[in-house]
Amino acid sequence: MSKVRICVVGAGRAGMVHATNFRQNVLGASLGAIVDADLDLARRAGHELEVDDCFSSLQDALERASFDAVCIASPTFTHRDLATAAAKGGKHIFCEKPMAITIEEAKQMIEAARAAKVVLQMGFMRRFDPVFRAAKERIEGGEIGSPMIVRSLTRGPGLPPRWACDIRTSNGMLAEVNSHDFDTIRWLAASEFEKIYAEANTLKCFDLKEEFPGFYDNAVVSLRMENGSLGIVDGSCPVGYGYDARAEVLGSEGVMLMGELQDTAVVTCTKSTGLVTSNFPGWRERFREAYVAEARHFVECIIKDQEPAVTGEDGKRALEGVLAANQSIKTGKPVDLPLEGG
Amino acid sequence: MSKVRICVVGAGRAGMVHATNFRQNVLGASLGAIVDADLDLARRAGHELEVDDCFSSLQDALERASFDAVCIASPTFTHRDLATAAAKGGKHIFCEKPMAITIEEAKQMIEAARAAKVVLQMGFMRRFDPVFRAAKERIEGGEIGSPMIVRSLTRGPGLPPRWACDIRTSNGMLAEVNSHDFDTIRWLAASEFEKIYAEANTLKCFDLKEEFPGFYDNAVVSLRMENGSLGIVDGSCPVGYGYDARAEVLGSEGVMLMGELQDTAVVTCTKSTGLVTSNFPGWRERFREAYVAEARHFVECIIKDQEPAVTGEDGKRALEGVLAANQSIKTGKPVDLPLEGG
Amino acid sequence: MSKVRICVVGAGRAGMVHATNFRQNVLGASLGAIVDADLDLARRAGHELEVDDCFSSLQDALERASFDAVCIASPTFTHRDLATAAAKGGKHIFCEKPMAITIEEAKQMIEAARAAKVVLQMGFMRRFDPVFRAAKERIEGGEIGSPMIVRSLTRGPGLPPRWACDIRTSNGMLAEVNSHDFDTIRWLAASEFEKIYAEANTLKCFDLKEEFPGFYDNAVVSLRMENGSLGIVDGSCPVGYGYDARAEVLGSEGVMLMGELQDTAVVTCTKSTGLVTSNFPGWRERFREAYVAEARHFVECIIKDQEPAVTGEDGKRALEGVLAANQSIKTGKPVDLPLEGG
Amino acid sequence: MSKVRICVVGAGRAGMVHATNFRQNVLGASLGAIVDADLDLARRAGHELEVDDCFSSLQDALERASFDAVCIASPTFTHRDLATAAAKGGKHIFCEKPMAITIEEAKQMIEAARAAKVVLQMGFMRRFDPVFRAAKERIEGGEIGSPMIVRSLTRGPGLPPRWACDIRTSNGMLAEVNSHDFDTIRWLAASEFEKIYAEANTLKCFDLKEEFPGFYDNAVVSLRMENGSLGIVDGSCPVGYGYDARAEVLGSEGVMLMGELQDTAVVTCTKSTGLVTSNFPGWRERFREAYVAEARHFVECIIKDQEPAVTGEDGKRALEGVLAANQSIKTGKPVDLPLEGG
Repeated sequence: MSKVRICVVGAGRAGMVHATNFRQNVLGASLGAIVDADLDLARRAGHELEVDDCFSSLQDALERASFDAVCIASPTFTHRDLATAAAKGGKHIFCEKPMAITIEEAKQMIEAARAAKVVLQMGFMRRFDPVFRAAKERIEGGEIGSPMIVRSLTRGPGLPPRWACDIRTSNGMLAEVNSHDFDTIRWLAASEFEKIYAEANTLKCFDLKEEFPGFYDNAVVSLRMENGSLGIVDGSCPVGYGYDARAEVLGSEGVMLMGELQDTAVVTCTKSTGLVTSNFPGWRERFREAYVAEARHFVECIIKDQEPAVTGEDGKRALEGVLAANQSIKTGKPVDLPLEGG
Repeated sequence: MSKVRICVVGAGRAGMVHATNFRQNVLGASLGAIVDADLDLARRAGHELEVDDCFSSLQDALERASFDAVCIASPTFTHRDLATAAAKGGKHIFCEKPMAITIEEAKQMIEAARAAKVVLQMGFMRRFDPVFRAAKERIEGGEIGSPMIVRSLTRGPGLPPRWACDIRTSNGMLAEVNSHDFDTIRWLAASEFEKIYAEANTLKCFDLKEEFPGFYDNAVVSLRMENGSLGIVDGSCPVGYGYDARAEVLGSEGVMLMGELQDTAVVTCTKSTGLVTSNFPGWRERFREAYVAEARHFVECIIKDQEPAVTGEDGKRALEGVLAANQSIKTGKPVDLPLEGG
Repeated sequence: MSKVRICVVGAGRAGMVHATNFRQNVLGASLGAIVDADLDLARRAGHELEVDDCFSSLQDALERASFDAVCIASPTFTHRDLATAAAKGGKHIFCEKPMAITIEEAKQMIEAARAAKVVLQMGFMRRFDPVFRAAKERIEGGEIGSPMIVRSLTRGPGLPPRWACDIRTSNGMLAEVNSHDFDTIRWLAASEFEKIYAEANTLKCFDLKEEFPGFYDNAVVSLRMENGSLGIVDGSCPVGYGYDARAEVLGSEGVMLMGELQDTAVVTCTKSTGLVTSNFPGWRERFREAYVAEARHFVECIIKDQEPAVTGEDGKRALEGVLAANQSIKTGKPVDLPLEGG
Repeated sequence: MSKVRICVVGAGRAGMVHATNFRQNVLGASLGAIVDADLDLARRAGHELEVDDCFSSLQDALERASFDAVCIASPTFTHRDLATAAAKGGKHIFCEKPMAITIEEAKQMIEAARAAKVVLQMGFMRRFDPVFRAAKERIEGGEIGSPMIVRSLTRGPGLPPRWACDIRTSNGMLAEVNSHDFDTIRWLAASEFEKIYAEANTLKCFDLKEEFPGFYDNAVVSLRMENGSLGIVDGSCPVGYGYDARAEVLGSEGVMLMGELQDTAVVTCTKSTGLVTSNFPGWRERFREAYVAEARHFVECIIKDQEPAVTGEDGKRALEGVLAANQSIKTGKPVDLPLEGG
């Protein structure tokens, strides 16, 4: 069959990772168009990636270019409108995390994709990472018995963009940085959230706290899952020291650690520096293979007309976890799930 | 000066570690007497360690033997009476964790030691472990900035004794296994507990759950400290795979990990086993040096008449954390500290 | 420009790695033909990789198919004839290690490529591995001063094919398994071989020793480089436990270790297995990225008409090291380099 | 029985480690006297360790003080005379490595101890290190099959004393720094040296090369053992970056690595330093436990009148390895063992 043409929406860092992968690392795909509200940015991306069709809105792209699927990598508050428009145009949808701002929006996206019979895949790339995937398989193989405690953390090196600091346009750090952890815990514990308690504080970016009501830059979340297992999320951003994405599952028969601070296996020791290993500077380096693998999976699902491994439902569930944690931070009390309307 | 003679109370595993250390690894100390409610056990220990004075009660020992200090390594519910009797007899006190069953008991112990002007040191040996001590020094040296999130966990390989499964005689797993973590977080965060939330569940020892009301074998605790930093404790017992005592401090300028699963630096790789490293079978192996160091410190404090690095106040504070967590587990709500009467 | 079409010669394991990469992981390349003396094997490969042009000899391919370059992944004793035929046909040449059986053959290959003005790149993929590449850059950046001792080892999990056990058709284990180490030491020490001493023995495959005169399955090589630095190679095959490719450079200002036994960062600890990490099962897993990177480099050199980073000269030099080591094993004495005719 | 009184000869760094251990870490021993050619140094040591009997020669100590054993920690060229004098006085002997300057001296020491029926133990403390000991036990238990290649390295952080730079008073770096490696390889391979080849060079201390003929600061040694296994030693001093003592055994069924660069399990990661672990600053830190264990073993052998685990014969064999390597460096040729007179 001919190649699946992808229109990438959002030419920021995540968008460029996806665009590059669809262009050169996915055998059955090609890059059809690039959209960014900042048309200059879209055009620079197009120039770099040899794509002629660059637009400032998805609507323009839908009207004037030819493609089969969209990859949504723009700010969270734009996801719902983009996904529903894409679905209406019969385009398959790959959507970056977090899925949306509200549960209602997430539901609309799922419904739109279902009605249009298009693939809707969420960008929880950790599920495609060799480390996390091997861990999941081995847990399912019974290597450490039943999960009892699952810990997942994400810490990012630099400040997120301003819209992501504003809890109204982003649901804050737990959404922008830690969405993955909520998904990872659901996935590895193989169960749904039952009760969530969270503590958060601003311990570094005191000026952002001033500017954005509700802002926090550190959080610790306790989770109780429906199957009785317990979860821990911790998040912090910016941490400066690099990108940190580790997880740990304590099972009834043993423990499994996944991820580490160390990047490449080069270790040096000198008098002035001591014993030093390189760490992951950012998520692009840490999850390079995972981003390629999820892109390949998306294209494969389109070609074979099958359900993706990470669905809109998964996106909605992770969002619920984030919203419950934010509510707990606000009220100082644990929150039961599912949330109303969830 | 002549040697400080120690009477060890409790000839179980912890007691034997202390007795052995006071006998052969502390230059200024000697082992003066051994007490255990099970006199046979006391005598077997005495035979092994070449100590003639073996008794079935501290009272007997106080009346009939000569020593300068007691080392309390018996079940928690006996600590208060032993410590107050020792103080009354003018003996210095080394007390294993957890300090006592109630805050009131802990206060009585502190008061008794103060009135008798004897040293009262708590057995939080992690403070003397080379790994934890180096970490504390480096944190204080500013290496990772101000602590923002402190994680500490303890997981034990085997079932605790029956009295420690009964929450009435022991305050349960969080007291018996995780006391250390509450102390570690206070110590590394350099702040007091402000708010504690805990989730617990029985995920392994379902029969003990039947037998002992309030029993749990897995717990996750969220802590907020007075200085705004956040804490996480996780506990599980028995985990089977070995002894696990790790901690992590995320600071404003970096992260510090302390402890690891690996024991000795011997790594093997064969076709049938894969890549294998030996792990710590138990706390005796993991904290061998720390137990020696805390014993030396105790003797040094007696000789130099100085305040120990880990005081009765530290024991009481950790106990408060445990009690607050247990209350949170019971009520399903976060608990503010200090507790009433705390 | 249109894609560079590659004809892969040799449909064994290495050939299939290259064929797959040229087909789907190199943006500017396509797979044009597959050649294997075993035509059925060639055809099965062609079926799997969607290539119609499958032949039992390069000559057939040259006459009947259209391509720009050949990738030689057949037994060592065929390299010279294939490379010279390819060059005569104006095809660029990617040649697996070891380059050839004799220095004379290697020289003929270099000369043929030079005369035909085609690219000749040797398959020392470690130079493209993220770990080794980062190490080389950091050494060049002065991080550990001047290299004083360079160690490189390669150990393979399984038996090489029979032709590679015969020292007459392969130069034995040091050629087939350890060619990489000779190249790595030259590269990291940035100097040429001056003197080589080797010890070898058969310590595992006693029956092969019977069958193949000169056979050995373990070897240790000492090297002195022209710049005065020292080198160590160790080789062993089959080791059963997996693929092992590590190196270490001791410099005047520090030490650098590269490579490790651990594969993915998943660690488990259970009572029955102890603390286990997955190791690399084979070279395909260990150097997956490196094989892609060297294929991309080859195509880029063709497109840009530039000298590859690993030349025929590099292939010849590594071969000299191997031959000197074999001579030392035979004579029991150190051997000076360059060899006669080298 | 009463305590075994030790007279330590040599109040330098190694001597002080031993003196401190015999005084406070060996239950059945006490420190009886301290000898150093520099009487002031001996007295300062005596003051620090609360020993009154300090002398400038062993002869004085033998005449005027009372003790049961001597611990020889003075320069190598003094060992023979001290050991024979001690034996003549009926004192047990603990002797630091390297044993002596010549094979003849080593034989005289062994003979003197035998004639006097005193214990003669060599200070190869690695045999008592938890890591090396566990490795040896596991190799003997068959975990990795028969040893095929054994690698052992030692690299020291700082310059040895001047007498140890002079090959005439010390046999140079391979003796002073790498004696341990020769012993480790014999021990782990469970076989004797058959053939040794060595390469050495001066790559750092160019001025010492000027001053001391035969000086070298880097060496690589290849060994063939009588049982057919192969060995590799590498040595370098001073390396600046810390103390490095690692070994590796490749067996017929797997590989075993022992030792690592990392000291305490504290890992930090900050933006400015990257991922850093503390390494071993020196041999005292790396082998602290081993020094205590060998001292305990020595006293136990005296008390129980039994052969020590590391004998004079072991000292002589390691010395032979060193001398053969030095001869190989000089002649540029491999050397067969045993040496004449060995």
